[in-house]
Amino acid sequence: MRALVLHEKNRMAIEEVEPVGSPGPGEVRVAMHTVGICASDVHYWTDGKIGPFVVEAPMVLGHEGSGTVVEVGEGVSHLSVGDRVAMEPGVPDPSSRAVREGNYNVDPGVQFWATPPVHGCLTDEVIHPAAYTFALPDSLSYAEGALIEPFSVGMFAATKADIAPGDVAAVVGAGTIGIMTAIAARAGGASTVYISDVLPEKLALLEGMEGIVPVDATTEDLGERVRAETGGWGPQVVFEATGAAPAYKNLWSLPAPGGRIVLVGMPVDPVPFDIATAQSRGISLETVFRYANVYQKAIDLAATDAVDLGRFVSETFSFDDSVGAFERFLEGRPTDVKIQITL
Amino acid sequence: MRALVLHEKNRMAIEEVEPVGSPGPGEVRVAMHTVGICASDVHYWTDGKIGPFVVEAPMVLGHEGSGTVVEVGEGVSHLSVGDRVAMEPGVPDPSSRAVREGNYNVDPGVQFWATPPVHGCLTDEVIHPAAYTFALPDSLSYAEGALIEPFSVGMFAATKADIAPGDVAAVVGAGTIGIMTAIAARAGGASTVYISDVLPEKLALLEGMEGIVPVDATTEDLGERVRAETGGWGPQVVFEATGAAPAYKNLWSLPAPGGRIVLVGMPVDPVPFDIATAQSRGISLETVFRYANVYQKAIDLAATDAVDLGRFVSETFSFDDSVGAFERFLEGRPTDVKIQITL
Amino acid sequence: MRALVLHEKNRMAIEEVEPVGSPGPGEVRVAMHTVGICASDVHYWTDGKIGPFVVEAPMVLGHEGSGTVVEVGEGVSHLSVGDRVAMEPGVPDPSSRAVREGNYNVDPGVQFWATPPVHGCLTDEVIHPAAYTFALPDSLSYAEGALIEPFSVGMFAATKADIAPGDVAAVVGAGTIGIMTAIAARAGGASTVYISDVLPEKLALLEGMEGIVPVDATTEDLGERVRAETGGWGPQVVFEATGAAPAYKNLWSLPAPGGRIVLVGMPVDPVPFDIATAQSRGISLETVFRYANVYQKAIDLAATDAVDLGRFVSETFSFDDSVGAFERFLEGRPTDVKIQITL
Amino acid sequence: MRALVLHEKNRMAIEEVEPVGSPGPGEVRVAMHTVGICASDVHYWTDGKIGPFVVEAPMVLGHEGSGTVVEVGEGVSHLSVGDRVAMEPGVPDPSSRAVREGNYNVDPGVQFWATPPVHGCLTDEVIHPAAYTFALPDSLSYAEGALIEPFSVGMFAATKADIAPGDVAAVVGAGTIGIMTAIAARAGGASTVYISDVLPEKLALLEGMEGIVPVDATTEDLGERVRAETGGWGPQVVFEATGAAPAYKNLWSLPAPGGRIVLVGMPVDPVPFDIATAQSRGISLETVFRYANVYQKAIDLAATDAVDLGRFVSETFSFDDSVGAFERFLEGRPTDVKIQITL
Repeated sequence: MRALVLHEKNRMAIEEVEPVGSPGPGEVRVAMHTVGICASDVHYWTDGKIGPFVVEAPMVLGHEGSGTVVEVGEGVSHLSVGDRVAMEPGVPDPSSRAVREGNYNVDPGVQFWATPPVHGCLTDEVIHPAAYTFALPDSLSYAEGALIEPFSVGMFAATKADIAPGDVAAVVGAGTIGIMTAIAARAGGASTVYISDVLPEKLALLEGMEGIVPVDATTEDLGERVRAETGGWGPQVVFEATGAAPAYKNLWSLPAPGGRIVLVGMPVDPVPFDIATAQSRGISLETVFRYANVYQKAIDLAATDAVDLGRFVSETFSFDDSVGAFERFLEGRPTDVKIQITL
Repeated sequence: MRALVLHEKNRMAIEEVEPVGSPGPGEVRVAMHTVGICASDVHYWTDGKIGPFVVEAPMVLGHEGSGTVVEVGEGVSHLSVGDRVAMEPGVPDPSSRAVREGNYNVDPGVQFWATPPVHGCLTDEVIHPAAYTFALPDSLSYAEGALIEPFSVGMFAATKADIAPGDVAAVVGAGTIGIMTAIAARAGGASTVYISDVLPEKLALLEGMEGIVPVDATTEDLGERVRAETGGWGPQVVFEATGAAPAYKNLWSLPAPGGRIVLVGMPVDPVPFDIATAQSRGISLETVFRYANVYQKAIDLAATDAVDLGRFVSETFSFDDSVGAFERFLEGRPTDVKIQITL
Repeated sequence: MRALVLHEKNRMAIEEVEPVGSPGPGEVRVAMHTVGICASDVHYWTDGKIGPFVVEAPMVLGHEGSGTVVEVGEGVSHLSVGDRVAMEPGVPDPSSRAVREGNYNVDPGVQFWATPPVHGCLTDEVIHPAAYTFALPDSLSYAEGALIEPFSVGMFAATKADIAPGDVAAVVGAGTIGIMTAIAARAGGASTVYISDVLPEKLALLEGMEGIVPVDATTEDLGERVRAETGGWGPQVVFEATGAAPAYKNLWSLPAPGGRIVLVGMPVDPVPFDIATAQSRGISLETVFRYANVYQKAIDLAATDAVDLGRFVSETFSFDDSVGAFERFLEGRPTDVKIQITL
Repeated sequence: MRALVLHEKNRMAIEEVEPVGSPGPGEVRVAMHTVGICASDVHYWTDGKIGPFVVEAPMVLGHEGSGTVVEVGEGVSHLSVGDRVAMEPGVPDPSSRAVREGNYNVDPGVQFWATPPVHGCLTDEVIHPAAYTFALPDSLSYAEGALIEPFSVGMFAATKADIAPGDVAAVVGAGTIGIMTAIAARAGGASTVYISDVLPEKLALLEGMEGIVPVDATTEDLGERVRAETGGWGPQVVFEATGAAPAYKNLWSLPAPGGRIVLVGMPVDPVPFDIATAQSRGISLETVFRYANVYQKAIDLAATDAVDLGRFVSETFSFDDSVGAFERFLEGRPTDVKIQITL
């Protein structure tokens, strides 16, 4: 069994590893088919750590995966051998309080693929809890199945936004997560989603998508644009999806009175928060950390004509060329959304 | 100035009435263009009353209207002469507690078009508060503008349903309100909306609409169908849109655990409520009465490709043939969704 | 080890049973101290079943229990030997979807004490998951610890009511659950809780409790009383806590506009639901089935001066006299709230 | 008719002003009895402005008032001459979108007492909309009636906190608004409210209040204290009530996983917001600006034994000595909570 193993900063290779064995009760064994590369995978490779998470032992990378069920453990009834599936990469401690309260994404005991010391899914096979393994409908490809993971971040953001049908939304930043959030917000009930970025190539990727309005932040103010088109009212829902310090400057006055800001981007350092402005407009704020209880809904929406994830696969590499895929990610071409690897 | 005046049960005629005069502060004068006929208009004509509301003096009918602003009162800034508009037919007492709390639809003091003794909009011109008058974008026709009223009922139902992006929904009944609710639920974030009816003609109207699945209630159980396609889980959101006693029999067990029932249909008599079943599944219930704060959002969604209201205009009559329009409504052809009158 | 074993309808006895052994990982062993008798325990004894739950094998009764930790399994960190504890009697399947979504009370796989075929806690010792075992503060007695279970039903009702601070509440029915609900609603933020019953003895139990207003339903209409004292507005929150058919007649018009009905009582048969009335007032409804995520909060509130559960222990029997306790329950004295057994 | 008129920065005097005349439809005339001094009143006096609000014409100060109805306008049914009342000082534009949506506090058109150029209530009589005038029960004094205004800020904070019954709360800062918030949170359903301050005199004011736990921030970390007493979990709800920059440093990690921060204090400048920490704990945030729809509920709670506002009147001055009252406010004695003036 092969795996893409990160030993330490800048040292990563495809290697032979121990086979995973058989699934226990409530588990399935899955042959991986497609795995997307996330910025976090690349950071572990280039930096050896992200914040408090440090690579101190060899770790398999990858957490955006799809594959095929090849063995089913005892007591699993909703999956069968041969099912095409996508896997939720984070598995919480089922006895924790956060799980019981429905917030399993913030359970301190969660085990998340490719977050040290937990192995990821860039390997031939994995064992995974069936409860966190979801069948893909025929209309979704393996590539789209692997995109369910980043799409779920956008879905969780859209869920936390509590979008009322017909609300106007705005997304700051058209990176991968910004795009996923815009799609989820539109399919999730917003009438129009304005999305701004400073890179015209990013905005060009969104041209022609119904209900999504790209705004060039180098020439136009997002807030002014939305207010001009909403009788001065502004968007009910605003998503911050850059995590870049400058983006927060005008954020707090952006939503309509009584509106909401959803913080999806994760800035490294604290950012200035103009509380008085947010107060005078009656703004509430939600934060997004991974996702909980949205994987099935993400698959269901992705399977409709309202969502086309496949167009956002920028390039696909073979597993043998995994290091090449990571290098390509590092190039950071402005038209890139998602680089994937197939096994 | 002409108006369609109902004098008493079964006595209705087009007549000359006093001109409306000039709009006061905060008001606009609107030349009516299109008015849809609602079952309530027809009931007042055939029965002279609906529940506690009795026609005791001549009353102009009609409450689903669109038109053109022809005069603007003092202090109105968001509308201009020539604007094509749709009007929200219910205007609450602005000093009431229900208004302050955001529930103006249940303000006991609301004045609603064509609800005795308040005159409706089947007339050449009306004076209306600008706050309840909404500009139509170019992409919406007057016919669609007049359909915003029934669509708003569906929008309010979808709003109260608190649909999370990707939720599965089910609508019981494909009458006009059931259809409007299904469209609003789909555009409002549901991945799939199953809608059942006993009339195949109703279901045929919905064929080919993306994300909407017609279910023939004469041959298939709605709950079984949805559970079969959701791994046994069922729909998170169920809309009851018939108001017909038999529809409530299986309603209480229909939603998924922790799901929600939205009661849109208005049964004349109390219906049997299986509370124990709803409890054991953790069901919550919402009721719908007209709508509040959705008109603008309904227009915004109707203007997108996700919603096509125009296809549901079954036939259009001239104002002179208004009585003919009402008679046609009474025929109750199974393919009818909305009959409209143009002025 | 002794246990109160129900063999079949009307045949119940204290018997020697197998010791429970040692707790597994994440479990604790608890020496029972006090167990309250619930109507469901008595129904199993007198009828041998409740709805679909039939006693087909010997079953230990009791699910309202408190005791002392005598052994702690591996990995349990928040409890120690000697801790006085109350146990949540229902344990869900931790891998179920309902659990992940935070609604573990409606998980179809829940194992609930003294619900066939699951043994209850009227026995010397039990093994229980630590996650569902809660330490009691010194200020709560074992008797109060055993009362946390019925209080949790009231707490869950009050939680689902989404009481805003200062809301006015009304409770229909001053049985055990009505009383627990009234206390929870008051401590949970209601300014005044009106509670009605037809038995003066029930209402007398509540005399002198701050913020709780007993209403004699034989001489006074609950709705009229509340409206008279709220400027005609009515209660924002209404709890139905009888499950008795007549109580539902005036229920639907009871809440204030935009208010909420929480259905706590569980009627055996469907009841007539006046949907049109509920709609015209904009009412939402919640259902209560056991409870989820409230045990710790129930303990925390019970430990404050705002709540005094101890006054509702009507009589305490020794374990040897368990059958006598059940017989006393059957007497149904109007002043009875809770009969308990100590081991 | 006398009034305390502020002409410009540092120039304020009691003067004769024009009588208010008779109330119009929907209005009442009220003889003022007691008016509390707020920091904003004092700021206008000492600085002539607060942010964008500048005193450019003589303005009557005061917005925390109670009094007696002396004349009732047409159409007012819920108030009579002689009623003791408290008045909500902000009156929105009833036709605004914010009002219709239930967020009238953030209506840009709101007219708020003693916010330039709107006159306040430190005068013999005022005309006020009856909809924003609330009868006081006998159990509340005029002094307490005037305290309903600052208490309403705490009530709105507690309402926005969405406290579930039994939640643990923490308040940062025991100034007037911190105290009002703590009281509202406790009466609004929290089991325990921890409140921290650096001034021991502030904390001493709260000694002996049931369910409120003062924490000396100079010797103890609020978060550590609450976690120590909640099994490491922390408070579900945190209120920031200082507006002082240092208070925000540890704020973002303070709530329990899935918890909420309510921003009540209004810092002059932006503060550093550690978004990543808030995200990793799944925190949501609410902002508070004045209040909406809580005045009646504040009165109802204040009238119960759960709330005693009267103890927080630090000193009362006669109207003739109004300037002395303001000077006393400026002393800023650590034991001061509320200085009031009687007319």
